[in-house]
Amino acid sequence: MRIDLNSDLGESYGPWKMGDDEAILQVVTSANVACGGHASDPETMFRTLEIARDRGVVVGAHPGFADREGFGRRLIPMTPGEIERLVATQTGALMGAAALAGVNVRYIKAHGALANHCADDRAAASAIARAARAFGPDMAVLAISGTELELAARNAGVPVYSEIFADRGYLSTGRLVPRSRPDAMIHDPRQAADRLVSYLETGLMPVVDGAPIKLEAHSICVHGDGPSAIAMAAHIRKTLAARGVILKSFLDPQVQ
Amino acid sequence: MRIDLNSDLGESYGPWKMGDDEAILQVVTSANVACGGHASDPETMFRTLEIARDRGVVVGAHPGFADREGFGRRLIPMTPGEIERLVATQTGALMGAAALAGVNVRYIKAHGALANHCADDRAAASAIARAARAFGPDMAVLAISGTELELAARNAGVPVYSEIFADRGYLSTGRLVPRSRPDAMIHDPRQAADRLVSYLETGLMPVVDGAPIKLEAHSICVHGDGPSAIAMAAHIRKTLAARGVILKSFLDPQVQ
Amino acid sequence: MRIDLNSDLGESYGPWKMGDDEAILQVVTSANVACGGHASDPETMFRTLEIARDRGVVVGAHPGFADREGFGRRLIPMTPGEIERLVATQTGALMGAAALAGVNVRYIKAHGALANHCADDRAAASAIARAARAFGPDMAVLAISGTELELAARNAGVPVYSEIFADRGYLSTGRLVPRSRPDAMIHDPRQAADRLVSYLETGLMPVVDGAPIKLEAHSICVHGDGPSAIAMAAHIRKTLAARGVILKSFLDPQVQ
Amino acid sequence: MRIDLNSDLGESYGPWKMGDDEAILQVVTSANVACGGHASDPETMFRTLEIARDRGVVVGAHPGFADREGFGRRLIPMTPGEIERLVATQTGALMGAAALAGVNVRYIKAHGALANHCADDRAAASAIARAARAFGPDMAVLAISGTELELAARNAGVPVYSEIFADRGYLSTGRLVPRSRPDAMIHDPRQAADRLVSYLETGLMPVVDGAPIKLEAHSICVHGDGPSAIAMAAHIRKTLAARGVILKSFLDPQVQ
Repeated sequence: MRIDLNSDLGESYGPWKMGDDEAILQVVTSANVACGGHASDPETMFRTLEIARDRGVVVGAHPGFADREGFGRRLIPMTPGEIERLVATQTGALMGAAALAGVNVRYIKAHGALANHCADDRAAASAIARAARAFGPDMAVLAISGTELELAARNAGVPVYSEIFADRGYLSTGRLVPRSRPDAMIHDPRQAADRLVSYLETGLMPVVDGAPIKLEAHSICVHGDGPSAIAMAAHIRKTLAARGVILKSFLDPQVQ
Repeated sequence: MRIDLNSDLGESYGPWKMGDDEAILQVVTSANVACGGHASDPETMFRTLEIARDRGVVVGAHPGFADREGFGRRLIPMTPGEIERLVATQTGALMGAAALAGVNVRYIKAHGALANHCADDRAAASAIARAARAFGPDMAVLAISGTELELAARNAGVPVYSEIFADRGYLSTGRLVPRSRPDAMIHDPRQAADRLVSYLETGLMPVVDGAPIKLEAHSICVHGDGPSAIAMAAHIRKTLAARGVILKSFLDPQVQ
Repeated sequence: MRIDLNSDLGESYGPWKMGDDEAILQVVTSANVACGGHASDPETMFRTLEIARDRGVVVGAHPGFADREGFGRRLIPMTPGEIERLVATQTGALMGAAALAGVNVRYIKAHGALANHCADDRAAASAIARAARAFGPDMAVLAISGTELELAARNAGVPVYSEIFADRGYLSTGRLVPRSRPDAMIHDPRQAADRLVSYLETGLMPVVDGAPIKLEAHSICVHGDGPSAIAMAAHIRKTLAARGVILKSFLDPQVQ
Repeated sequence: MRIDLNSDLGESYGPWKMGDDEAILQVVTSANVACGGHASDPETMFRTLEIARDRGVVVGAHPGFADREGFGRRLIPMTPGEIERLVATQTGALMGAAALAGVNVRYIKAHGALANHCADDRAAASAIARAARAFGPDMAVLAISGTELELAARNAGVPVYSEIFADRGYLSTGRLVPRSRPDAMIHDPRQAADRLVSYLETGLMPVVDGAPIKLEAHSICVHGDGPSAIAMAAHIRKTLAARGVILKSFLDPQVQ
């Protein structure tokens, strides 16, 4: 049993801080670093990359709609071609900071409304796959399990890995419980950790409306915004490690 | 006799057009493409790179202060480290678009107030040299002839080339005539072209206040903003070619 | 017979120019001035207001989604409350520049995707009406004829005036011909002017698919982006004046 | 004895929070609300204004250089005319939100590098005075005690009030101790409060390098960014009240 833990990082901007990157980088094995679109700036990227490098955490780009005020959570109407250029330039910007920090950017994970859009929209998904492929055969995509993006990356010959969410309820369809429902979120760290142990031991994910379902995942997405999020992430890591799960990046063959 | 012609390009933004990139790309041998800081956006970068690629024009990054309203012409107070990250992320963004367009970004030329700043300020110049070096030994710097940037790049082991201006008067100190003086600008295409021919034939640049001076240059900067600028650039190209000057990039060994 | 001519103005941004405000301000009787959301900046607003003031042109605010890259033509998902605050702050910004220029901002006309959104969406329309009402009983709304915004402003007790488009074909439903159809746009200045004369003389607007329809309008929207747009606007003004139509603002009782 | 307490507020931006506006609005009698230049957005302005209104706190505009990444702390080169338009449009934007919240914007206090610039530069100071005057005779300026801005506003006939800093050491010249010195900041709430009591009782401000000096002030600037800042502000308020100092706005004749 092995799994990766990933989190969205580098989402501060200018004088405004978001999350405790240093704390969450002690927990995760992959860091999705914002690229100056929905969040971040050159200083924030560079500092986040330095910490990730020092902690041996694998780095991916985390591009999003260029909408700081909406934090990339609003769907901005864009053509597939525009999405392709958006993702390529944001990923490139992070690679520029990474060149200074002596870090490789290994994968792309879309953020917020862009991630949702390319989960369902085939043309948008293909655009992201093309952007990834432009960076060469080693650039991977980290996609939400069971989405169009996963399929599009696979079809484009781009290495693709899938993620599940530590704190979101699942439906028997494999989809997330909508946020409007009371069982959308898991707030109890123990419950979240136990569910993941169960999933990793059986390959079956408990759902809110039926029998556990088969779900493929190479990574678990945890959060770092606020003390309780970090506490949950840390508890998950500790619990998985205690059950013998090896925590390592989906890209790095060495156990960390 | 050989020389490169370079121009600043890709400086449109969203719905706003600047210059006639297509026209000037028929004249120059090197294109300094804006990177989303003082100007440009992912679409503009990509389109400009496509045209440069189709015309066989060598591409460089043209980073500037992230100040669209001031078009990168205002000195924004930044530490050398901040400048290093600014230049690296902007250059990276362009490289992302270039990956899609199948183009290599071969050099870095600073824009506007950033160029002026690193012409005189050793620490800022070194920051740009470090940013260039982070992209590997093939990334060059295009600097104004006789500046701190030229020196800093050389000291850092970064390939460095120097430029002169087609339409600016020179002083016997090697500096440009200040814009406040009436002889700061050369408006007549014929006069501009003749001066350059004279310089290329003798290695000595005519100045406004004395005998021609020695000036080293691998490239001539021409402008593409407006019909008269493009006409001057085209006239210079035609005149130089008629005098047997080989027009080619300072980076590309093949005659174009 | 009297009518107002309005146009969108002040849509330059920093170093980038759009349209020829000075030329179109010799044609129109109302100027919709961009407010720093989809376009404009403090300098552009102020200069545009000064010219409008000197020409005796009535000024309205022209707020749009805060999306420069998309020029306010992309629908940004916002709640009605957010739209209300967006419109109020943008209108306020223009009023600040107007205070310096000694001009009154008399009405609000939404731009691009925001105008389309509040044409069809009752809650968005009401948000704009509330924003207008907050500026006191003299602040009017200029709405597309026959839209939810017209209704919402009326219901809110806000003075409301309606506009038609000089260069867009109409359907017998009163809606514009979709841009995808070849008869969406009228390119011939003569045809555009003749249609408007016919409308003003009869109160009936010729449509592309049947008999002319009744349409209420206090203003005609003309464009100022490019020489042919300005030529069309000038031809319309000249033709209407020659037919005895009085050209004056819907808000100003004095003939200009 | 009476004095006003003011603080900079509304400095969140999109998803990023800064300070605890609700807490500090229970302490101060005047709120300097950011206007979308160095910080804030329509939602943040509106929410801050609503709380200020509910708490009976007088509201001023807090314009700054339009430089979010630098939080308005970097000097952006601008002409006096450009500063005038910057301040007028930012103040207008806040007035738009204030119209919705049913609040009056009563004064202007410049932020960060803009405040420092107009403290020393007469032309910049006059620009701010002109911007204030454009909003009518009731719009006041809140200036740092003893600055060019104080003088310029007075010369322009603009009502002007002056402020001192609760947590900054003073020199016998009346200037602040430079931040590079260890005695620049006062960190102990008790020391800060005691110094202010002494000042209010004697009209003489203790300095770090000699005998107390005469200093005119209508307001004390306190901070709200972080728990210790709020604790200091609250302690100052409590101490002053206990010593019989009446805490009320310099603009509002009613004791709060």
